[in-house]
Amino acid sequence: MSNPTVSAGSNKDRVLIFDTTLRDGEQCPGASMTLEEKLEVADLLDAMGVDIIEAGFPIASEGDFESVSEIARRVKNATVCGLSRAAPNDIDRCAEAVKHARRGRIHTFISTSPVHMKYKLQKEPHQVLELVTNQVTRARSHVEDVEWSAEDATRTEMDFLCRCVEAAIKAGATTINLPDTVGYTVPDEYAAMFRAVRERVPNADKAIFSVHCHNDLGMAVANSIAGLHGGARQIECTINGIGERAGNAALEEIVMALRVRGDVAPYDTGIEPTMLTRASKLVSAVTSFPVQYNKAIVGRNAFAHESGIHQDGMLKNTQTYEIMTPESVGVSKTSLVMGKHSGRHAFKEKLKDLGYSLGENALNDAFTRFKALADRKKHVYDEDIEALVDDELLNAHDRVKVVALTVIAGTMGHQSATLTLDMDGQHVTTQSTGNGPVDAIFNAIHALAPHKATLELYQVHAVTEGTDAQAEVSVRLSEGEATVTGKGADPDTMVASARAYVSALNKLMAKRGRGRPAAMNAGV
Amino acid sequence: MSNPTVSAGSNKDRVLIFDTTLRDGEQCPGASMTLEEKLEVADLLDAMGVDIIEAGFPIASEGDFESVSEIARRVKNATVCGLSRAAPNDIDRCAEAVKHARRGRIHTFISTSPVHMKYKLQKEPHQVLELVTNQVTRARSHVEDVEWSAEDATRTEMDFLCRCVEAAIKAGATTINLPDTVGYTVPDEYAAMFRAVRERVPNADKAIFSVHCHNDLGMAVANSIAGLHGGARQIECTINGIGERAGNAALEEIVMALRVRGDVAPYDTGIEPTMLTRASKLVSAVTSFPVQYNKAIVGRNAFAHESGIHQDGMLKNTQTYEIMTPESVGVSKTSLVMGKHSGRHAFKEKLKDLGYSLGENALNDAFTRFKALADRKKHVYDEDIEALVDDELLNAHDRVKVVALTVIAGTMGHQSATLTLDMDGQHVTTQSTGNGPVDAIFNAIHALAPHKATLELYQVHAVTEGTDAQAEVSVRLSEGEATVTGKGADPDTMVASARAYVSALNKLMAKRGRGRPAAMNAGV
Repeated sequence: MSNPTVSAGSNKDRVLIFDTTLRDGEQCPGASMTLEEKLEVADLLDAMGVDIIEAGFPIASEGDFESVSEIARRVKNATVCGLSRAAPNDIDRCAEAVKHARRGRIHTFISTSPVHMKYKLQKEPHQVLELVTNQVTRARSHVEDVEWSAEDATRTEMDFLCRCVEAAIKAGATTINLPDTVGYTVPDEYAAMFRAVRERVPNADKAIFSVHCHNDLGMAVANSIAGLHGGARQIECTINGIGERAGNAALEEIVMALRVRGDVAPYDTGIEPTMLTRASKLVSAVTSFPVQYNKAIVGRNAFAHESGIHQDGMLKNTQTYEIMTPESVGVSKTSLVMGKHSGRHAFKEKLKDLGYSLGENALNDAFTRFKALADRKKHVYDEDIEALVDDELLNAHDRVKVVALTVIAGTMGHQSATLTLDMDGQHVTTQSTGNGPVDAIFNAIHALAPHKATLELYQVHAVTEGTDAQAEVSVRLSEGEATVTGKGADPDTMVASARAYVSALNKLMAKRGRGRPAAMNAGV
Repeated sequence: MSNPTVSAGSNKDRVLIFDTTLRDGEQCPGASMTLEEKLEVADLLDAMGVDIIEAGFPIASEGDFESVSEIARRVKNATVCGLSRAAPNDIDRCAEAVKHARRGRIHTFISTSPVHMKYKLQKEPHQVLELVTNQVTRARSHVEDVEWSAEDATRTEMDFLCRCVEAAIKAGATTINLPDTVGYTVPDEYAAMFRAVRERVPNADKAIFSVHCHNDLGMAVANSIAGLHGGARQIECTINGIGERAGNAALEEIVMALRVRGDVAPYDTGIEPTMLTRASKLVSAVTSFPVQYNKAIVGRNAFAHESGIHQDGMLKNTQTYEIMTPESVGVSKTSLVMGKHSGRHAFKEKLKDLGYSLGENALNDAFTRFKALADRKKHVYDEDIEALVDDELLNAHDRVKVVALTVIAGTMGHQSATLTLDMDGQHVTTQSTGNGPVDAIFNAIHALAPHKATLELYQVHAVTEGTDAQAEVSVRLSEGEATVTGKGADPDTMVASARAYVSALNKLMAKRGRGRPAAMNAGV
């Protein structure tokens, strides 16, 4: 048996990977990212070979517009795409956001299913059909690369779907997306829909067809690949499969399914698979969405026979239980690398290996904290350094900082926290009690920096193994429509908790007045 | 459009649900459960209508034998199944374990693919074929209900597979399982395999065919349903999709896919879908495997339009974005129910509503802790009570208990913990320092109860929202081949951490000398 991870190459059809982590992924409750986080994700998506990056929904908010616009300016290879509804100002705003991209795309959508047209749009089919022509024509007046989506396509009546697709292509759409908006379809049915539309629409050969699947019934990946068999050549997906409700099809699963099963699904993508693990970790970190242990491709147990179970068969021949190698998706063994005697140069080199490039100031700060960590912790692993640098990067421009903290906790009651914060340069101190030490800390922060946010998530995990591991704490706060996640890393869980809460508070202050109304989330 | 969650009823084929959470699920690294935890899961699986419960692999260890045997005695409706390899003593041991079941099944397997036969078994095909006849014959000498599995069936040569299946049925196998052991297949291919085997094997109509899919390429659910189209009528799956590597097909996804898409997959199961959420929570709690937020059916975001996003469309008509209701899978809104004035009777009733039945002593202990919690915490939610009772249940028979703890932490260094433990009735106290307060606590435990276990996981999450939420801590320890997970809940994170570590230590002490060698994990 030949190695199934080696792609057969040029005899396969090329399939475009359209990543919507920053739009459909970011749209799900709790996953909102800051501008800086979005830029970091966009850079990685571009570097790993994503063909189209859907960067946001420009009309939705000032923040969304800014991030699409900024991503359009900096992305080097990928097409940068923004989403828009059928309204002219919506489309114009999207055009404005993508205009500085080397390759910009306007993605414009409208619902075509009976239930959506009747209740959501409150329009008759002939009105929708007219809007299709208008929206695509308007988008084409701005850019050459226009994608049109039939929202809820899988529950749309076939004749009407064909008429809409024909009108969209006639008006100049270069990509036609037929999403399974509610995660309802099954593979054979989805393939048949593409086959039927492509057979029945006379100008179908003028556009690339696209799949966009949700995972409500656990079939998003199988449906996406079935769509290719039906003639689609673009796949819309997200890192870790994040997205509305049960999420979108997972990019990493699709890419590896096509590589491993090139014999029955002969399609190539431009994705560098060894970057999949890093992309998964980054998206999990910036959203604070944990990846389940048994997640395909990127879960910690996905290749667990390698580390934990010494399968009799695996010892004799790895092919007995392995259809791809951990290395092929970028899993490397944790290596013990740095200690208290490591110098500044070695530290900088290590950061480069890990994919970080820091400015001088950030580097100096990170190095100081690395030395402090190395003094306290026996083994400093790659993950420890990553946590420390992420913490540094995420909190670089904070107005409020943790200066000092002392906590007393235990079964005797009287949990208390004495906290000093730096607020715009002023040091302020207070002491608070609480129901548990974390509550005491958060009460102290609240006393020093009054606010009305609600704590939605408090989560601690150890960065590496062993009792002296650094703790990484995530805190999610919401205030009105705004939701932010702050992170803090420190060997002292209590200090990490204070940092994470303060980090979230800083983001909330930066965000105030810039949130988008939730009704702007798109169901594509 | 009719309500898709209503099953069409008797015009559909009945499909058997074979749950292997306690065997293939428990086999994955870190998911091992205690006997008490397995019994609790088995009771719930039985109550929700699982047809066959695979309870373990009796020959693997004394502990596995005991749990299969105990589950066989207590399960009321389901068939209880044990796994065995082809060796006679393996099969005899399995028979011994299931003999007290109302309906007992022996599941016996052997590898049939070229790579497995050559490297893992180091046997020629004709030797394997002979073993098939022998193993099934031996199993049938003990019970009437015998399942035979062709391990790695999807990579097995078709002629040989057919010969093996024919031999197994001839020897008396009543169920034939053709697993996709390495998670390699795609829907059409898997359906075609079943079709071909059932057409070519002359006595195929004498057995029920079964699917068993792994999720390495994200297609386990779609493959399982494709197998039904190919003629299979049993599905092997696990709660939350836990299992080797990327896990097995998720029971909850399969059950709901068949209910929602009964029009294209006309198959009925006996599962009560409103119990799916509770089953997911229980399995997540006993394994400490978190469920990702966007997990289909049971993730916290799976129905998030209900709570978080106020979709314009959803407000007008829920069918715009909803193909099943949250209530249909047992999701209920968190309700504010109990406070410090609630009495013992109300508490007992509430526990009954939540599905717990406690003995008098456990109830008294839980009520005392509930009152203490209600004194400290503004709102006591269902989840708080669940966490408290779970903690009570899990730690009822512990030899070591946390009596008192005081912790000092913060940025000043000198993190220290003063800890008193009750060890078999003796109170012992020590003070320790550490790299962070959790490290100090764990060092104190280590000083009082010396052991060689490694900390593999430390995880904290808030049980409910708000800064005064209870913390639930999971600690995973490993010692040699044994891995255990302890949990602790308390409003004070530090106290919960101490309890969780001590709970893990108690389990480890109970387990010492009873572990099974990892090479006994089965690849079915």
